[in-house]
Amino acid sequence: MENGSTKKKKWAFQGNPELNTASEITIRAVLAMLKTHLNQSDSRPVIPLGHGDPSSFSCFRTSPIAEDAIANALRSAKFTGYSPTVGVLPARRAVAEYLSQDLPNRISPDDVFLTVGCTQAIQTIITVLADSKANILLPKPGYPYYEAFAQSCHLEVRHFDLLPDKDWEVDLVAVEALADENTAAMVIINPGNPCGNVFTFQHLQKVAETARKLGILVIADEVYGHIAFGKNPFVPMGVFGSITPVITLGSISKRWIVPGWRLGWLIINDPNGVLKKHRIIECITQYLNISSDPPTFIQGAVPDILGKTKEDFFLKIINTIKEAANSCYEGIQDIPGVICPSEPEGSMFVMVKLDLSILENIKDDLDFCVKLAKEESIIILPGISVGLKNWLRLTFAIEPSSLEDGIKRIKAFCRRHSKKA
Amino acid sequence: MENGSTKKKKWAFQGNPELNTASEITIRAVLAMLKTHLNQSDSRPVIPLGHGDPSSFSCFRTSPIAEDAIANALRSAKFTGYSPTVGVLPARRAVAEYLSQDLPNRISPDDVFLTVGCTQAIQTIITVLADSKANILLPKPGYPYYEAFAQSCHLEVRHFDLLPDKDWEVDLVAVEALADENTAAMVIINPGNPCGNVFTFQHLQKVAETARKLGILVIADEVYGHIAFGKNPFVPMGVFGSITPVITLGSISKRWIVPGWRLGWLIINDPNGVLKKHRIIECITQYLNISSDPPTFIQGAVPDILGKTKEDFFLKIINTIKEAANSCYEGIQDIPGVICPSEPEGSMFVMVKLDLSILENIKDDLDFCVKLAKEESIIILPGISVGLKNWLRLTFAIEPSSLEDGIKRIKAFCRRHSKKA
Ligand SMILES: Cc1ncc(COP(=O)(O)O)c(C=O)c1O
Ligand SMILES: Cc1ncc(COP(=O)(O)O)c(C=O)c1O
Repeated sequence: MENGSTKKKKWAFQGNPELNTASEITIRAVLAMLKTHLNQSDSRPVIPLGHGDPSSFSCFRTSPIAEDAIANALRSAKFTGYSPTVGVLPARRAVAEYLSQDLPNRISPDDVFLTVGCTQAIQTIITVLADSKANILLPKPGYPYYEAFAQSCHLEVRHFDLLPDKDWEVDLVAVEALADENTAAMVIINPGNPCGNVFTFQHLQKVAETARKLGILVIADEVYGHIAFGKNPFVPMGVFGSITPVITLGSISKRWIVPGWRLGWLIINDPNGVLKKHRIIECITQYLNISSDPPTFIQGAVPDILGKTKEDFFLKIINTIKEAANSCYEGIQDIPGVICPSEPEGSMFVMVKLDLSILENIKDDLDFCVKLAKEESIIILPGISVGLKNWLRLTFAIEPSSLEDGIKRIKAFCRRHSKKA
Repeated sequence: MENGSTKKKKWAFQGNPELNTASEITIRAVLAMLKTHLNQSDSRPVIPLGHGDPSSFSCFRTSPIAEDAIANALRSAKFTGYSPTVGVLPARRAVAEYLSQDLPNRISPDDVFLTVGCTQAIQTIITVLADSKANILLPKPGYPYYEAFAQSCHLEVRHFDLLPDKDWEVDLVAVEALADENTAAMVIINPGNPCGNVFTFQHLQKVAETARKLGILVIADEVYGHIAFGKNPFVPMGVFGSITPVITLGSISKRWIVPGWRLGWLIINDPNGVLKKHRIIECITQYLNISSDPPTFIQGAVPDILGKTKEDFFLKIINTIKEAANSCYEGIQDIPGVICPSEPEGSMFVMVKLDLSILENIKDDLDFCVKLAKEESIIILPGISVGLKNWLRLTFAIEPSSLEDGIKRIKAFCRRHSKKA
């Protein structure tokens, strides 16, 4: 074959071009790029303020009850086989039970679809809504995975603002102006990533009423559900499911600090049955039919994980995060060139604004992050990758001593780069 | 809001219509439909000859070494966090090591991408190749998940036959006739699902040469890799990677009998670097960047699962499957109206042809399966769902006593439905 006696055709394949830009806007891709700028000869430890995964720090180790639950399900040999498309019944029942505690209408196991992390839940609802003419409204700043996946399915995206001066509430006037007859849904993330805010009951109700008026469904990303430690308690959007249909996305990744376990869910909060009538539920099942499921024994552990984890564990974690949030917020106050409009009250993040007018030789947020990586061995996410240019997203959910060290290094960096008066 | 004072728009969302037909052709959907026909008042156990998951039978329990590996990785607390996009390095290295044993060129950890079962590996390569004009060549009969996923990404599918009279070899003349300048790849499944065949070294080499001539890549689904128990040994397609680029898909699901663990891989066998040059590797990473990963602790267990499982375990499983295959093949010989062209030599399946001319009141394969479910409480997959009308796909990988009972019931059914002479 290789001797030229047979005519060879040129290779006919090429990679799908849609994936190119879709992937580049993910947090993963930006953080990977920043890491290439780290200075290998800096002997100090790298401080990871870029992404929300505190699981490697000992103060954030998950509950032994959760680990036992997995080991028991594994050893039982009852969960070695393929799972049903929508998840195993005991796990669906347990999730329904867990979430119903905070809802006026109980949800049933049939309203629960188990997914490979909240990531697959997002992938599912985006694919389901990706009809040729449809569009979806996303928050800015937001979680760029929504944009990336919508692009890969050709679902048109329109952005509404979250308002920094109003505790990052949704600009509902903008939502009404953006929506048209092809708008299928709007997304809210509560507690907020990247803003660290927690919406009030009243604001969530207004979101639901606006959505009802526009004839759209609300997708509520509650992957940080219950991680609230400020003035507003966490209120699940499902509470308003009788005003407008709500699809809630969540996972055990954040509250149990086990993002590597990949167990999430997609929940129907729709007592009026609108989603069923519009074939959305059927379509969710169809997509899951052609998707991989979460490992069956991890599903098998869900009743124990959700049912048996002690309140103590949650309190300890929330306190650790709360203290970290406070010391981060306070530390930031005396960094020149960096402004924080509101104290974080939930999730694991805070957004801070750069005042480039007082920083020398820093072009923009990305330039700030590249130089910070190089000079101080700190990874921070540039705001541009969550939709806000010249802002930064910091996570405070890391070991307290590292956080303190990180804040000090950012301060040194900003002082060094401050314009001389 | 509900009192009519505010104008309500009608709901604007609808489910993605592509998912409808895509999902209906999956094996999951067909088996679920057949189950609705079971007769609830039949007190005999249902015999599941429909799908390849023997994990619930005690004779197919996985190795304790594999279970220990998972439990140890879980307890180590080293694998609780998010995994890198492509998988954790020790796991990639272990898969490279495992597969290199049977290859002339060693593959490197960089050639290995970990996926949520082989299912996500299929999803990945199909999405990567789904360029607007591209087409892909799939075997008939085949594994309908390829068709379903290709349809959901708008990748055009063309079918070539597997030849029942030639041990289910690929009709390479048909492959050449089908391919054009937009053909990106052809898929082979070896050991074969649904045919239970194992390709010879010579035939695989011809497949590679044909692909090279056409300028296409070979996607080799080796999820049943090493499950070969007849005259032909299992030869991995990667052996021919220097003739034409080969992407191998696999998982631990079948050889370790742990389909619920969801750990698979996508492997680049391409010593000439053609796929890299054509941006295929980059595109695979980009798609995995927007996908959920296999749970990190399951990845953490891979070095022990692949490296420490004893030969004894594999021998015992292969023997059990082989005996089941033999007794299935022999049992089928005296069932009227059912013809088996070749004895199964690999995987967990056999294809048998219906002779409708001697069966009374049976319209086609689907009708056969519906009536069999109703009258005999047996689930068998109709051939139509793997692309061959009026054939059936049976799995023999179940508990021997159930298999024997199943064959008896099919015999009784066919005798009852035979035309009177
Ligand atoms: C807002 C938001 N949604 C979804 C996810 C994905 O969650 P999971 O790890 O459960 O897939 C994240 C992860 O950081 C997130 O921040
Ligand atoms: C040919 C073929 N490919 C892929 C798969 C999916 O494998 P996994 O369970 O590893 O996702 C199967 C499952 O039955 C199969 O038969």
